[in-house]
Amino acid sequence: MPRFRMTVEYDGTPYVGWQRQDNGASVQGALEAAVLALTGETVSIRGAGRTDSGVHAIGQVTHVDLAREWVPYKLRNALNAHLSLAGERVAVLDVHTVDQSFDARFSALRRHYLYRFINRPARLALEADRAWWVPKPLDHEAMHAAAQRLVGHHDFTTFRSAHCQATSPVRTLDRLDITRSGDLIELRATAQSFLHNQIRSFAGTLKLVGDGKMTPDNVQSALEARDRAACGPVAPPGGLFFLRVDYPGDEGG
Amino acid sequence: MPRFRMTVEYDGTPYVGWQRQDNGASVQGALEAAVLALTGETVSIRGAGRTDSGVHAIGQVTHVDLAREWVPYKLRNALNAHLSLAGERVAVLDVHTVDQSFDARFSALRRHYLYRFINRPARLALEADRAWWVPKPLDHEAMHAAAQRLVGHHDFTTFRSAHCQATSPVRTLDRLDITRSGDLIELRATAQSFLHNQIRSFAGTLKLVGDGKMTPDNVQSALEARDRAACGPVAPPGGLFFLRVDYPGDEGG
Repeated sequence: MPRFRMTVEYDGTPYVGWQRQDNGASVQGALEAAVLALTGETVSIRGAGRTDSGVHAIGQVTHVDLAREWVPYKLRNALNAHLSLAGERVAVLDVHTVDQSFDARFSALRRHYLYRFINRPARLALEADRAWWVPKPLDHEAMHAAAQRLVGHHDFTTFRSAHCQATSPVRTLDRLDITRSGDLIELRATAQSFLHNQIRSFAGTLKLVGDGKMTPDNVQSALEARDRAACGPVAPPGGLFFLRVDYPGDEGG
Repeated sequence: MPRFRMTVEYDGTPYVGWQRQDNGASVQGALEAAVLALTGETVSIRGAGRTDSGVHAIGQVTHVDLAREWVPYKLRNALNAHLSLAGERVAVLDVHTVDQSFDARFSALRRHYLYRFINRPARLALEADRAWWVPKPLDHEAMHAAAQRLVGHHDFTTFRSAHCQATSPVRTLDRLDITRSGDLIELRATAQSFLHNQIRSFAGTLKLVGDGKMTPDNVQSALEARDRAACGPVAPPGGLFFLRVDYPGDEGG
């Protein structure tokens, strides 16, 4: 069967998350329903990242096997037409034919995420559900300094959800940068893979650094404690965006 | 009575527009309800621009008279708390005390608007209701060239709604620039005041230039025709953002 790689954008607000679940609409379910409507095939679409409810994607990568060959752009347009008809907040950005060795989840070399804070006195209107509103001024330089203590190969038990299903809490964090532009503070994280809630746990802990409740040394101690209780609050999902995935053979991959 | 100038951000999607109307929720109504909840006063809040349903604001400017003095930041925070309780997509960004000579509408020197096109094959997910999706490639340089024919002091009858209530169709357009950054094409318009639907009429007409259906000369002829029938389709409201207003005495105003 031909395999297709699809890059997908979504507004995570109305979904229970990427993964199909019994308790509500999922992004995976929306895409699988579009395939069923188009081809009559009941498929299972795999995603590079199982984003939580409310988390957005600018470049989630997926793969699907279909019964027949499709011209990639026609498959993209037809799936988007069905997603539009169904009123979904999901778009297929591009489609490529790949061989059977490509797996959206297991072939990934690096995953890139963005977490957005808006740091201003006024509540959010246009950016509601697209950023974490933090009214108290945050010291983004202290946040960045603390973030550097987390980069590298570590046991991230402190920063993973109690529900994380990964076998090992050890991961290599390639990048965790915090920058500010006006009211907007952006956290950018890169790793081959992340634990469940890892980035939102980082964001919630670094927010405590930004408002002076923790120091970079405290963050290092929290990491070394390997204890979930040492983590700050998990940041809200609307601030998190799955940006892109690198694969072998991609430009820069 | 003390007068307060308030800068307001809103997501226009759920509203019938800025202005209070009988047929649904308005931004003006949301703000007036917040004042009533806070102070018990039934007020009329004036805005610098009467944006249509679905049009957003990053910096709408308003004024309101209240019975007593307020510390401006406390008024901002209290109004935002009431807007939040009411589930409104409206935020008061800042509040300043002004004297009675300030009028949000009539004192305005210049109004600045942004219109956003997203020019890509795939439908919009994250930017649905925040931009006009145009799948066919647009020539933004031709659009910019055509836009320059509209700058200046003209009779803009071609580019105003049949429902426009302005006495005169003559306006001075200070700026109409079109720029591209990747898939995003931005139109930026500045004038002391605009006619009803003027910017969305510009956007719809310039889109026809972008996809080769009109030339800059055609746009000039359309302007000179002073005939609504010569206008392109009115662009959808979700792409339009009211950016800011300049007043006498403001920095740069």
